[in-house]
Amino acid sequence: MLAYQLIERKRDGGRIEPGEWQELIASYLRDEVTDAQMASLLMAVFFRGLDRDETAALTDTMLHSGASLDLSHLTVPRLDKHSTGGVGDKVSLILAPLIASLGAVVPMMSGRGLGHTGGTLDKLESIPGYRIDLTIEEFKQVLRDVGTSIIGQTSALAPADKKLYALRDVTATVPSIPLISASIMSKKLAEGSSALVLDVKCGDGAFMKNLEDARALAVSMVAIGTQAGVRTEAVLTDMSAPLGRAVGNTLEIIECLETLKGTGPTELTGVIRVLARRMVMLAGVDRDETAAARRVDDAMFSGRALQVFAKLIERQGGNARVVDDYSLLPAAPDRELLLATRGGYVTAMRAEAIGRASHALGAGRSRVGDAVDHGVGIVVTSQPGDSVKAGDTLLELHHRGGRNLEAALALCREAISIGDEPPAPRQKVLGEVR
Amino acid sequence: MLAYQLIERKRDGGRIEPGEWQELIASYLRDEVTDAQMASLLMAVFFRGLDRDETAALTDTMLHSGASLDLSHLTVPRLDKHSTGGVGDKVSLILAPLIASLGAVVPMMSGRGLGHTGGTLDKLESIPGYRIDLTIEEFKQVLRDVGTSIIGQTSALAPADKKLYALRDVTATVPSIPLISASIMSKKLAEGSSALVLDVKCGDGAFMKNLEDARALAVSMVAIGTQAGVRTEAVLTDMSAPLGRAVGNTLEIIECLETLKGTGPTELTGVIRVLARRMVMLAGVDRDETAAARRVDDAMFSGRALQVFAKLIERQGGNARVVDDYSLLPAAPDRELLLATRGGYVTAMRAEAIGRASHALGAGRSRVGDAVDHGVGIVVTSQPGDSVKAGDTLLELHHRGGRNLEAALALCREAISIGDEPPAPRQKVLGEVR
Repeated sequence: MLAYQLIERKRDGGRIEPGEWQELIASYLRDEVTDAQMASLLMAVFFRGLDRDETAALTDTMLHSGASLDLSHLTVPRLDKHSTGGVGDKVSLILAPLIASLGAVVPMMSGRGLGHTGGTLDKLESIPGYRIDLTIEEFKQVLRDVGTSIIGQTSALAPADKKLYALRDVTATVPSIPLISASIMSKKLAEGSSALVLDVKCGDGAFMKNLEDARALAVSMVAIGTQAGVRTEAVLTDMSAPLGRAVGNTLEIIECLETLKGTGPTELTGVIRVLARRMVMLAGVDRDETAAARRVDDAMFSGRALQVFAKLIERQGGNARVVDDYSLLPAAPDRELLLATRGGYVTAMRAEAIGRASHALGAGRSRVGDAVDHGVGIVVTSQPGDSVKAGDTLLELHHRGGRNLEAALALCREAISIGDEPPAPRQKVLGEVR
Repeated sequence: MLAYQLIERKRDGGRIEPGEWQELIASYLRDEVTDAQMASLLMAVFFRGLDRDETAALTDTMLHSGASLDLSHLTVPRLDKHSTGGVGDKVSLILAPLIASLGAVVPMMSGRGLGHTGGTLDKLESIPGYRIDLTIEEFKQVLRDVGTSIIGQTSALAPADKKLYALRDVTATVPSIPLISASIMSKKLAEGSSALVLDVKCGDGAFMKNLEDARALAVSMVAIGTQAGVRTEAVLTDMSAPLGRAVGNTLEIIECLETLKGTGPTELTGVIRVLARRMVMLAGVDRDETAAARRVDDAMFSGRALQVFAKLIERQGGNARVVDDYSLLPAAPDRELLLATRGGYVTAMRAEAIGRASHALGAGRSRVGDAVDHGVGIVVTSQPGDSVKAGDTLLELHHRGGRNLEAALALCREAISIGDEPPAPRQKVLGEVR
């Protein structure tokens, strides 16, 4: 009866009180509220929304549906970073060792990729031997010794979110800003960080297609984090084109290593520097923007961050020699170039289509449990704003024996526009929410 | 995947094509589409609606999910009537024998009551021995011999509606005009009538609370019926106060018999005459309004309609002597009067609260399968517009040993308003849709 009344009330635009969220979610986890009732409620939430207090109450209920990680034995600042996901988004993999090299602890639990955006865990698993399934004790040990550890999300944290997300995924109720906020934040708050920087991606290749929605999501998540006593900030970054030049698991690991060596793509390095600066300041390591920027650049260009990454790989069972020898990483045997059919300026390199093309080549998965091909992917050789001649290489596709190559090429052609005039310059960092 | 795409499309305001409805419902009946997906879709339909073609396609799909009754061996017009349900609504029980006495055939499949409105089958089961579970063969035989038969809905007709309705009932997705239309019309079209009159109730005690919604529902159902080749009309009738004076199973059967004897409440008799006239004209028995009215009144006041009712009872296993001896019907042993505490005019007799009071006394059921007490109920002795003195009887509660009497009395007090000025006169028939 409770569930029925709450669905009806939300359907008609009313509020669900904190105690009601608790009872509802508890009943759902006991299977007393059915999937059908929950799905109906979620669709009503899609249309009616949740106000700030409701979102906080739902987050809190999901957070307390499982264990929380206690990292209070670590006396240094515990900093986490979360990205809403995008094509070529390897930022977490670079930030974690970078921030750890500055003396903070970066505990990171990541998800696998589904669809076109790829997942941090899949990228890490390109590294031979890397284990994402550490026990909580091992995780804590690596954190203590290395300063960062990146593992898979454990189902012990926020199990209610896990059950709800699986339901949303099949009932077309994922794209709701309060539901996304509560889902992300319940997991992040369970991970025991004292500060959190959110990278909210915005554009064609991201979940949030426009700046307004991205900002609303950022505001919602920052409010939840702040209310829960975790210093939380968000940076809005562009995802209209892939971030960096590499899309695909091994290719992105190589780009991470290059960036940590100071030779990564300028644009990617720029985003990393902004996010790292925010994290350093949020952690209280520096209070001054210039000092923070100097500290970040120093860690990056001195190679200290790279050393932390190597140590992280080693401690999680991976072959740390990949840092210097990329040939140890799984590669695709075949290459195909996509050439410009006319001269002009690259005016668009649509991230979603590039992501789908990489997915088609085998880099992603369509269903939970599918295997991914770590070697395949796409290297973006011409970016928006670049001037090209007919016959210039636009993209380099790394494929395996032509598997789905035609489909991938078609998607790539769709992704790219070439015009006579250069496009308006794009900012990669679109805004901040504190 | 199909279900997901259709949910997403409807959620975003798109259309679902006829072939897609077919595939969706077929997959749902095979349990390939889950209850959760269907519930999510139904909630999206609540918000986005269905256009006329979608509603027709859904109706058609549900209609063809099961058997249809073939009554084509009956050479006379086959007329059905459906009411959307209200408090004290015993209209079907009077119309069926009345219309049958005029030479048409009235095949009627009814539902049980749930909640405060009561059900035709429960009322009929007040009559000792009356069987609502005839086989289809017995049903046809009674139709042939008596001209009407009233039985329970068989699950062989429109099984998709049965499954969908059960889902809507627990997911708060019942109140959607296209879903209600498709549900009612899929069953009615399966019953093989050649013409159909819909009584769409409107007001406090009905499902549709205002005239606008009631008219929209009527328009939607008339369109579906007409498109399916069944002559269909709707009459909009008032349900702000109970219809007639009796609320409760035995009490309503007695009121039906009185009305068929020409001594029923004026207002109820008026509604019956309007609906019967429409049915006679729709069946083509008369083309002229005055002739139709004369024919209806003649059947009612000559006692021919009463004879048909007696024959119907007998042929369905009931004790037809109840027609003349009401003491054969189950009665409640106790009476309680609700008296006016002040003088003035009765300005409101809210149907829903009266229905709930009768329900509290035991006349209704809260869950499928609950037993009902046929004897209990309420007789409305003062109606809106009546002038009363302090101490006058407003209602007579028929109860069993005081069971839930206090709760019922409280509801009744809530239902009634007495003011200094007479209320604006109410029309019982609010409009027609042809």
